[in-house]
Amino acid sequence: MGPGPSCVYDEVYAALAEPTIGHLDPLFIRIMDAVKEDLKAIIGTSNRLTMPMSGTGSSGMETCFVNLVEHGDKVLVLTNGVFGKRMEDVAGRLGAQVDSLQFEWGTPVVPALAAEKLKGEKYGIVAVVHAETSTGVRNPVREIGDLVRPTGALYLVDCVTSLGGIPVRMDEWGADALYSGTQKCLSCPPGLAPLSFSDRALAKLKARKSKVPNWYLDLTMIMNYWEGNTRAYHHTAPVNMIYALYAAVRRFLDEGEDKVHARHRAAHEQLVAGLDKLGIPMYVEEEFRLPMLNAVGIPEGADDAGVRSRLLKEFAVEIGNGLGPLAGKIWRIGLMGHTARPENVDTLLKALTVCLKR
Amino acid sequence: MGPGPSCVYDEVYAALAEPTIGHLDPLFIRIMDAVKEDLKAIIGTSNRLTMPMSGTGSSGMETCFVNLVEHGDKVLVLTNGVFGKRMEDVAGRLGAQVDSLQFEWGTPVVPALAAEKLKGEKYGIVAVVHAETSTGVRNPVREIGDLVRPTGALYLVDCVTSLGGIPVRMDEWGADALYSGTQKCLSCPPGLAPLSFSDRALAKLKARKSKVPNWYLDLTMIMNYWEGNTRAYHHTAPVNMIYALYAAVRRFLDEGEDKVHARHRAAHEQLVAGLDKLGIPMYVEEEFRLPMLNAVGIPEGADDAGVRSRLLKEFAVEIGNGLGPLAGKIWRIGLMGHTARPENVDTLLKALTVCLKR
Repeated sequence: MGPGPSCVYDEVYAALAEPTIGHLDPLFIRIMDAVKEDLKAIIGTSNRLTMPMSGTGSSGMETCFVNLVEHGDKVLVLTNGVFGKRMEDVAGRLGAQVDSLQFEWGTPVVPALAAEKLKGEKYGIVAVVHAETSTGVRNPVREIGDLVRPTGALYLVDCVTSLGGIPVRMDEWGADALYSGTQKCLSCPPGLAPLSFSDRALAKLKARKSKVPNWYLDLTMIMNYWEGNTRAYHHTAPVNMIYALYAAVRRFLDEGEDKVHARHRAAHEQLVAGLDKLGIPMYVEEEFRLPMLNAVGIPEGADDAGVRSRLLKEFAVEIGNGLGPLAGKIWRIGLMGHTARPENVDTLLKALTVCLKR
Repeated sequence: MGPGPSCVYDEVYAALAEPTIGHLDPLFIRIMDAVKEDLKAIIGTSNRLTMPMSGTGSSGMETCFVNLVEHGDKVLVLTNGVFGKRMEDVAGRLGAQVDSLQFEWGTPVVPALAAEKLKGEKYGIVAVVHAETSTGVRNPVREIGDLVRPTGALYLVDCVTSLGGIPVRMDEWGADALYSGTQKCLSCPPGLAPLSFSDRALAKLKARKSKVPNWYLDLTMIMNYWEGNTRAYHHTAPVNMIYALYAAVRRFLDEGEDKVHARHRAAHEQLVAGLDKLGIPMYVEEEFRLPMLNAVGIPEGADDAGVRSRLLKEFAVEIGNGLGPLAGKIWRIGLMGHTARPENVDTLLKALTVCLKR
């Protein structure tokens, strides 16, 4: 019940332990194709280039920037937490001219301020995090997309924590590059980064003057392994992790998006009500709260690390600490995927009651 | 029985499907520490910075170069196959001045020629592949190390296919950066890249004038997650893959290095004898053959893809094709880790006999 990894479905564990076959085996290629189609459905896109990268969620961030940024390109990051800051760092290392608009951690990006910023400067990429895992804030990505589109910039959205827990609608938002992770609301172990590029993003990639400065994450080559009839070897795909992701996306689609999202909302509401009784306040304003990542104020006098450690040792429940300026101020309670169930909320609330009393 | 992934040990599958716990859970940190110690033993090093990167073998190659190369650095690659060529590409993308010495595919790097090259120019890094997976050649990495050391260059060795199948002695060779993969002779699914840096490599990393231009693979940050008392979060480690690697390295050490290597040699000799009876020649001179990757000439008149496809469909045996200039000329038969057993060699020889007759 921390900020991820979340609890994993039994069928995902079973898939993970299926016999490893070759990364060019015709059966494996069928699995790859099926994963791609399922990811498109979950991400809300018809983008041909939709597949998992062979690394954890952060490798998805790296992939988006390293493929789309050339030296000197102007990038705007709308930042209100750790993962926005990380985007600034990633883009800067690649030689981008990084500009940012900073919002207080725990509050959302304000579209009107972004609009103003976009009027003053032309950017190649505008990037934002949908669900800020560090603060529990949902950013208004649809509204931001409406502002970015007329400027001609590529729109990059981090959906690591949102995908599978709240609606992700890549095409409706006009997003051009989007990535996620497997270990949050998809309830699969960490190790892959689902990713999608629009045709506009692909056009930018194809028009590069320089080679992508990262062989391992170069989509111009990786595409030739994930698409078409020839399936050119690039690197050995993490075969078993892809089995696991396949089982996880099937589970999501079998349960049905609406039901999964409703389950997240219900668990969140149950948690908020229970915490309220314990006198523990939510850190984020109601409208912008994420159901799957609940930032809560640490009660006056409670021992931050001590309570977390006791929860883990005595109740086998993990919750997360605050990061950066929120360290020591908040806890982060995850209700992601398989974890988002009433019995888990009950367990946590009871355990927290005990740990806060003594 | 292709060039990897190899057959996976039952206990590795079981470990893979163990419950996912948090990447900062004290129990997980104990597992990380144990994996590091076991990897040191297998790699033959006392380097403090020895751990698995969160990507497949090629991410290990990328990690070595991206951390050690700064723009304009001179890199020499001793190339005799696909993976040497890949090193040239990786280093070039990072702004290195890449020089190379090319040897015919299927033959080893010749130390005397390397010595001559090293006299003519000063390099920051000299790189070579220990076991060329594309050709089945073992390169004389110890002899090359003896030549590189006096020049002051960092010595980078690819041990993707060698580790676990033939002796790897990082410290004895004087290697400064070394990486491997999990899906070859360690018999673990693909997804991690064991890696080790010497103190000299670390010093070069710490003396960089510019940030590592790859956030995801930046060892200056990743070290702080894998070492010390604080374990600063960088990215969410691929928890279950690390369980699997732990089981695989334990299995290797329990069986004992000498026995595992002898098993590889015996399976190789059995294969060579059987192929000889079928009139199938080995492509590489005996002295430089790899036991775990056998390049064999495709018999006159045999249908390359047809035979491989029939082996897979009718006998559930995978073998690999030739790459680059060796496409259509050789097959690559893997005897890696758990696969290196007499019964597997028998199965392949019988199946091959059938497929070549009709």
